[in-house]
Amino acid sequence: MRIAIDAMGGDRAPASVVEGAVEAAKNWSELEIILVGDEQAIKPHLSNQPSNIRVVHTEERIEADDEPVRAVRRKKGASMVMAGRMVREGEADCMISAGNTGALMTTGLLVVGRMEGVERPALAPMIPTMDGKGMLALDLGANMDAKPEHLVQYAIMGSIYREKVHSIKKPRVGLLNVGSEAQKGNELTKVVFPLLEQAPIHFIGNVESRDVLEGACDVLVCDGFAGNVMLKTLEGTAGSLFNVLKQEFTRSWLTKLGAALVMPGLKRLKQTMDYKEHGGAPLLGLNGLVIKAHGSSDGRAVFNAIRQARTALQHNLTETISAEIVRQPSGK
Amino acid sequence: MRIAIDAMGGDRAPASVVEGAVEAAKNWSELEIILVGDEQAIKPHLSNQPSNIRVVHTEERIEADDEPVRAVRRKKGASMVMAGRMVREGEADCMISAGNTGALMTTGLLVVGRMEGVERPALAPMIPTMDGKGMLALDLGANMDAKPEHLVQYAIMGSIYREKVHSIKKPRVGLLNVGSEAQKGNELTKVVFPLLEQAPIHFIGNVESRDVLEGACDVLVCDGFAGNVMLKTLEGTAGSLFNVLKQEFTRSWLTKLGAALVMPGLKRLKQTMDYKEHGGAPLLGLNGLVIKAHGSSDGRAVFNAIRQARTALQHNLTETISAEIVRQPSGK
Repeated sequence: MRIAIDAMGGDRAPASVVEGAVEAAKNWSELEIILVGDEQAIKPHLSNQPSNIRVVHTEERIEADDEPVRAVRRKKGASMVMAGRMVREGEADCMISAGNTGALMTTGLLVVGRMEGVERPALAPMIPTMDGKGMLALDLGANMDAKPEHLVQYAIMGSIYREKVHSIKKPRVGLLNVGSEAQKGNELTKVVFPLLEQAPIHFIGNVESRDVLEGACDVLVCDGFAGNVMLKTLEGTAGSLFNVLKQEFTRSWLTKLGAALVMPGLKRLKQTMDYKEHGGAPLLGLNGLVIKAHGSSDGRAVFNAIRQARTALQHNLTETISAEIVRQPSGK
Repeated sequence: MRIAIDAMGGDRAPASVVEGAVEAAKNWSELEIILVGDEQAIKPHLSNQPSNIRVVHTEERIEADDEPVRAVRRKKGASMVMAGRMVREGEADCMISAGNTGALMTTGLLVVGRMEGVERPALAPMIPTMDGKGMLALDLGANMDAKPEHLVQYAIMGSIYREKVHSIKKPRVGLLNVGSEAQKGNELTKVVFPLLEQAPIHFIGNVESRDVLEGACDVLVCDGFAGNVMLKTLEGTAGSLFNVLKQEFTRSWLTKLGAALVMPGLKRLKQTMDYKEHGGAPLLGLNGLVIKAHGSSDGRAVFNAIRQARTALQHNLTETISAEIVRQPSGK
């Protein structure tokens, strides 16, 4: 298993990327990890280089504020683009990057390439849930507008991912909607609902966004706009509430004492809400596995993303999705 | 000022409705409050009836689980429908109901009637914000799909509402979106953005849902589907977090002690998030004022909805919106 990693992508690159890679290489000797990036910057963090890590040198990189499409087209030697090219040319089985999300989606489309039969690949992050199991939501931003047939493909791809990578036997697939009845929603969801009922998945119907954190399903299907609104509301609400709690808890010595006593519980809650536990977000529907790690990934998050890639490769994720998509009427 | 109130709508009707009405009638002698509903059920709560409250008797009512359109069409004698008819026929200046939201929107459309030039009336609740000022968001569910010109009308109506009812001089109008740049979003938001720049409002650009609770604008414009997803995510996240906190806080006597010490802060936070402080949600774009009070309204929430109606009537809200809509190219 050869995993190409964009060593220069992410807020803490290359240090945290290399740290996670070394940890993973030591842990799983069958992995061959290829760090793509500036050798000068990478080497200092590789003092104790495992034999199953090698560096492919390039000085070019995509910046966080680069315009995605232009950057991918022009910077052909950028670490992210080179990692993508390795997947396309069969030199790597998977690529991981914590860099510019838009550029990675463009790299997926233009460099790695769309899977045959898939019109729109989807970004599928895990949303933390209170039971700690998490929910895969897609699409969360690869495409802002979606047609009904795209949502059906999202459902199939997400379902296979959960089965293969997380060993969930019969993943419950829900449709993000504003009510539980079949006839609820906008034009898109009304058309999609009966299509999902016929798809080769375990469709459990509409799921309201108020039930997401409670783990109402294993795979949540939505268009990129609504999904993004949901995810950012969730993050914003949790962030705002934690901020206010912090202010309230430091108001006096009495509240500080109280806060100290309830701190273990708060920490558990914060950990439940932590994206790092769930690895990165796969881009599903490409000709190879591409994983987007969170921009602020530390070594542990990178390590988890590699673990995730390894599990997906072990279970032939991409091949299984491809076989199922081709079987569908819309995939031909 | 004659305010017709659906005395039978809401989880705690008629008790809480009558309680709020009596309080308001005592407080503002210039009001004439008309309680529409079952006299037998209302009277026991009206032991001390102010002279500016009268009851219009009807036994029919719309239930919480009635199918909205059919119920409004068939139950012509229902308390909600009768209150709507009083507004249409000029016997009341405003109606308030805490009943079935779908039925109230139908009553607004079919009984009270659309304002000339308005294609889609909008439901505009206040979203609590951390600074306590709140944000008016529309549309939050009257129409699931929206065209660009609808969103422009929402913006104008919401802006006038905030100015008239909340005395905000130059309300900041934001467009719910997935990023701050003008070119972000789906097909709808991309087309709407330049139209909002030209509209007679103080448009401040895109607002991401993660900044809603922080009070990023005074009026948030969105289609009913995305808005509903946002609101329910917000409520769901806050609810889930409070639930987990409660569990954590009751884990042992030590955490209970800690919780007791931080409780005043938690209560303040809960109060900030409380819809009751902000009255009801106006249905904007109708031929008269219609206010939806929360289904679980207590007397205080009903009182606040009446206060809100009074302020809107004092400032000629409906007439001002109508004049501005007619002035717009899309309103003719």
